[in-house]
Amino acid sequence: MKEHVVIIGGGFGGLYAARRLKNAPVQVTLIDRRNHHLFQPLLYQVATGELSAADIATPLRALLKHQQNTRVLLGEVVDFDVANHEVILSDGTVHYDTLIVAAGMNNHYFGNEQWAQWAPSLKTVEDATEIRRRMLLAFEAAERAADPETVRSWLTFAIIGGGPTGVELAGALAEVAHDTLRNEFRRINPSDARIILVQSGERILPTYPPELSAKAADSLERLGVEVMTGARVTDVGRKHVTLTIGEQQEAIAARTIIWAAGVKASPLGQALAEATGAALDRGGRVVVEPDLTLPGHPEIFVIGDLANYSHQTGKPLPGVVQVAMQQGRYVADVLKRRLQGKPVRPFRYFDWGNMATIGRGAAVAEIGRLRLGGWLAWQLWPAIHLTYLIEFRNRLLVFIQWMWNSLTRSRSALLITSRQPLANADGLEAPPLRVIESGVMPRVR
Amino acid sequence: MKEHVVIIGGGFGGLYAARRLKNAPVQVTLIDRRNHHLFQPLLYQVATGELSAADIATPLRALLKHQQNTRVLLGEVVDFDVANHEVILSDGTVHYDTLIVAAGMNNHYFGNEQWAQWAPSLKTVEDATEIRRRMLLAFEAAERAADPETVRSWLTFAIIGGGPTGVELAGALAEVAHDTLRNEFRRINPSDARIILVQSGERILPTYPPELSAKAADSLERLGVEVMTGARVTDVGRKHVTLTIGEQQEAIAARTIIWAAGVKASPLGQALAEATGAALDRGGRVVVEPDLTLPGHPEIFVIGDLANYSHQTGKPLPGVVQVAMQQGRYVADVLKRRLQGKPVRPFRYFDWGNMATIGRGAAVAEIGRLRLGGWLAWQLWPAIHLTYLIEFRNRLLVFIQWMWNSLTRSRSALLITSRQPLANADGLEAPPLRVIESGVMPRVR
Repeated sequence: MKEHVVIIGGGFGGLYAARRLKNAPVQVTLIDRRNHHLFQPLLYQVATGELSAADIATPLRALLKHQQNTRVLLGEVVDFDVANHEVILSDGTVHYDTLIVAAGMNNHYFGNEQWAQWAPSLKTVEDATEIRRRMLLAFEAAERAADPETVRSWLTFAIIGGGPTGVELAGALAEVAHDTLRNEFRRINPSDARIILVQSGERILPTYPPELSAKAADSLERLGVEVMTGARVTDVGRKHVTLTIGEQQEAIAARTIIWAAGVKASPLGQALAEATGAALDRGGRVVVEPDLTLPGHPEIFVIGDLANYSHQTGKPLPGVVQVAMQQGRYVADVLKRRLQGKPVRPFRYFDWGNMATIGRGAAVAEIGRLRLGGWLAWQLWPAIHLTYLIEFRNRLLVFIQWMWNSLTRSRSALLITSRQPLANADGLEAPPLRVIESGVMPRVR
Repeated sequence: MKEHVVIIGGGFGGLYAARRLKNAPVQVTLIDRRNHHLFQPLLYQVATGELSAADIATPLRALLKHQQNTRVLLGEVVDFDVANHEVILSDGTVHYDTLIVAAGMNNHYFGNEQWAQWAPSLKTVEDATEIRRRMLLAFEAAERAADPETVRSWLTFAIIGGGPTGVELAGALAEVAHDTLRNEFRRINPSDARIILVQSGERILPTYPPELSAKAADSLERLGVEVMTGARVTDVGRKHVTLTIGEQQEAIAARTIIWAAGVKASPLGQALAEATGAALDRGGRVVVEPDLTLPGHPEIFVIGDLANYSHQTGKPLPGVVQVAMQQGRYVADVLKRRLQGKPVRPFRYFDWGNMATIGRGAAVAEIGRLRLGGWLAWQLWPAIHLTYLIEFRNRLLVFIQWMWNSLTRSRSALLITSRQPLANADGLEAPPLRVIESGVMPRVR
């Protein structure tokens, strides 16, 4: 009977582990709630209408179909029974010999989960579609609003969080407002949109060197984004966001608020800690051994964003695609070496560098000691991202769309889709197009 | 003051009318509930994962942005005040001098609207996403089901309606089951799927010549589709569809049912008839004059699927893209000629032919007296459809995707997306993955 390896999560960690086990003498089961692998670093481009979901998402079954030793299971893991080597799903259990947990991160509103209805965050394909819908409806509502104040609040966009997602969203949204929608409205000018990037810390992109943070802020401001640092969010509502800057409070009338501020480890980290006695860090990540196993449980690996691996630099490795990919490959290699009775070395992360893009023609990149900003960094960016897209076909299509959009300054996927396209999302008080307008539309003549 | 032309509906009729008025000395307002124009003839390819929504949908604002005399208004028309020349929206009114109503058709369950929850139909982008989700979840559920009977019901797909949409959906679904999903499952064989096309009349594609109906049925059966003609649907539920064939009743255990049987004119047809005294036909379409106006109302035109135009052949023209496009252009020309004081001729439809595709390598086409079936007809098909896609970019991307999918026999957009991807749609009793399985998953070893 072959050893059964169960992998939880079809992100970069889980998928690369499964792929690396292709020819290993084991049975593999990959469990995910979603039927697709998603390239999250480009999700903001779906939210801003540059790409379609299918360009950056690929069904897991299709990716693993030629791996005869691997099955994919669509299911929701809720707990673990480590004594009996069982993963507990919402509707059954799966037995494992080896368990690889790559369940990643969820969004986090720091105890203010009620803000989620006014300030959606960007984690899934549905989130991207919803943000796209709200963003586009805001321009539509502004076009129909009668008084300047209402127009202003519909044209004010607040993005909370100055990490890579917030920076990239703000840059892309600025492009939509200033370039893409040019000439599309008759009463408003989309370029009047006010786009605010709110960062609680002293600088945006805090994980990058300070000089690149400054360059990124410069590039954003040139695109028309207001960068507010040292600003903590203290309230979020249907029509406003309240910031505390130093001693001062400021309420900003904004109808579109996007949350890019917090992530927290999947609750499966907590469940694992309770089951095994492993330690959690403040972010809920599971502290792992040098070989990515849990203490006393050589059969359980935790990898990717859910793992706190501090054995290399003394600090936890960052939650980026590269770390997850390399850890996925590493644990597959560990399993293979164990089966061959070979010794195992600790995991070592090789840092290829980091990059964030800020709209057309600007990016920041850190590659080893090299630090690039502006146009030069931006030139590198498409090539690097295309490399990571998992399917050749998607690379081709995304490349063509980028070229096309770049030449024509257009975006192709600016669709408002929803069961009730004119209504606002669950939890919003009223459909926005109904609340904007006092009675009669202005006559055109 | 320029004449104000209000167009209701951004389908082929409304859009082509608006575009033809580009340089006319009028003000144009195009009103739609959706922000995009949709190429409905390819919607079944979104439902079956061949294309993404953005490939066949384009924002109306982007299409009309360079037309300075035209504005787009996102809004829901609910009624008309023809005495005051006003269109009544859910949240305001718009005054018109000339009104062009191109509001199209809605789905219709013949008085059994409660069937809609079990048997969604295909009209919007959201419908396509929902059908894709149900279809894919059915295979997932079958993979996890324990007893053969449950597997069988999850692998049974009933498509109600043997017109072009039903035929094309059935053919595409057969390809998904037999080709695309090959090797993707470990316990079921997707090729075991039973795909039933239910037609109440004596033959499928009843608007085509009988010989082409026969060819289409042959092609479908070669793809593994069961074509059931003379079968009326008498009940639809969560797990079954009941058919009446002659005197016999047959209940088929099917977990995925798709409604492609009925369409009915938009309720705006009824509203117009009440406001103007115009006649409606049995399908709720508005009977129009030879110049597509309403009797006694030369300022109101009805075009496209919503119009019953019988002055050319004695029968109403079919509800196809070509008719809508030609009528859209015609009414724009009528307006221009009126402004120049020139006389107007009755509308004449030029029939370029009809075509339906039945999976890879088979189609039927009727072009004038030429009737083609099988492979030859299929060769014509992509070229014809690409011509109608409204944007060059989309033509290019769709062409590449078709070529790619054809070479690799894959489909790129087989994504399950939904706020609750594992739950079933509103109105279904329970999430399908929870109801399938008794307790414990079979161990792999």
